[in-house]
Amino acid sequence: MNKDQLVDLFEQGSISIPKIVMSSYKQLQLNEEEMMVLFQILTFMESGNFFPTPSEISSRMTLSETRCTEILRQLIQRGYLEINEDNDENRVIFERYSLRPFWEKIIQYLFYQTINEEKEKAKQQEL
Amino acid sequence: MNKDQLVDLFEQGSISIPKIVMSSYKQLQLNEEEMMVLFQILTFMESGNFFPTPSEISSRMTLSETRCTEILRQLIQRGYLEINEDNDENRVIFERYSLRPFWEKIIQYLFYQTINEEKEKAKQQEL
Amino acid sequence: MNKDQLVDLFEQGSISIPKIVMSSYKQLQLNEEEMMVLFQILTFMESGNFFPTPSEISSRMTLSETRCTEILRQLIQRGYLEINEDNDENRVIFERYSLRPFWEKIIQYLFYQTINEEKEKAKQQEL
Amino acid sequence: MNKDQLVDLFEQGSISIPKIVMSSYKQLQLNEEEMMVLFQILTFMESGNFFPTPSEISSRMTLSETRCTEILRQLIQRGYLEINEDNDENRVIFERYSLRPFWEKIIQYLFYQTINEEKEKAKQQEL
Repeated sequence: MNKDQLVDLFEQGSISIPKIVMSSYKQLQLNEEEMMVLFQILTFMESGNFFPTPSEISSRMTLSETRCTEILRQLIQRGYLEINEDNDENRVIFERYSLRPFWEKIIQYLFYQTINEEKEKAKQQEL
Repeated sequence: MNKDQLVDLFEQGSISIPKIVMSSYKQLQLNEEEMMVLFQILTFMESGNFFPTPSEISSRMTLSETRCTEILRQLIQRGYLEINEDNDENRVIFERYSLRPFWEKIIQYLFYQTINEEKEKAKQQEL
Repeated sequence: MNKDQLVDLFEQGSISIPKIVMSSYKQLQLNEEEMMVLFQILTFMESGNFFPTPSEISSRMTLSETRCTEILRQLIQRGYLEINEDNDENRVIFERYSLRPFWEKIIQYLFYQTINEEKEKAKQQEL
Repeated sequence: MNKDQLVDLFEQGSISIPKIVMSSYKQLQLNEEEMMVLFQILTFMESGNFFPTPSEISSRMTLSETRCTEILRQLIQRGYLEINEDNDENRVIFERYSLRPFWEKIIQYLFYQTINEEKEKAKQQEL
């Protein structure tokens, strides 16, 4: 490995995954393959590719392109992933993924958890 | 969700995953479930638990405890994960996971890639 | 640089700083030197050193040890940093820094911002 | 703070700073203000703004716009920051910052460190 490759490594950088994601995706009814598809989309987006194709995603995964397409379709249908229209600086419209619905589910889960904990407390105080 | 929970969220923080990991794990012969086990270990370690049990790991995954134990055993056997002995400040010996062998494989892969690219260049110059 | 050093680099990893920190520390009345002291503490903590000394911190900064001690004292006094007592597994008590008060200030700021925006909206609707 | 703001927070995400940066910037002759300017540029770039103005940068810092302009000029002159030309998908040329020279300095420093350590070892073996 030469210096240029090392510089590439640093320049590429890292994706940040909130620890809450690692400890709650199971409760959101997501499995490991689905999470890795979402992490791959995040990686592409943070490198400037906001709408990676199933072929691009599957080329980095042990899943076939057909399986990737199927997972993407389900993630959208089940409300974890969205395709939005956006405009670039020259007003050209392009499509892009958004993980916003995924973050909404995480927050719903956190709110739901609080309510349950408070109900639990209230119950115990009644006894 | 109240303020305390939000503070917890910030305090918990995030794990950082180099983008090179997301784009090369397939070439290292690792699949999505194995990567998620490694990410879970990383998450536990960055929260101060350096030797999470298969039960702790599987409780956050859609994999059974038996399946987690099996994956952990294979990751160690195939040279991606290590159990080391360490001493705390009071010289008590404890066991801990180390992802060092995984990082070594990533680097080996990067070196190997460079050599191949250079061979390729040399070939093309000969023609 | 040899392979071992590269493995060290990967194993060391990165700290994650929420973008909101970068865009709001000024509003929290913190300056660049104070933020860098907090980031240094975070870096030490994420490497397992929960109570770095002013000497350890200043050795990585362009600030003198006296200046570091002064900044640490002020961060504590002004409510951005805390020293807590904690127990390790063998019940030995030790002191450690906590950035919890800093995260509380960030959240207070976010709440405050929302209230102001809503007041602003209400005003505009009255007109 | 409402749910939408929380979703914004998650969607914004974090920047990742390699720990080596925090432990070696002093040796690269950079100070805390200069590092924070670089971190601000990184934050803007990871949010899709590849050429933030001195005014945008200083609006988030305790430094005046004039001081920011001065620091940016010096970072470029001293070889830590670069302005490149890039093309978007519609072949429109735009200017953007690149931290590539900064990463090169970090790597040079790591190489230099290794050579010195090896010289040191060789010396000790001669004795």
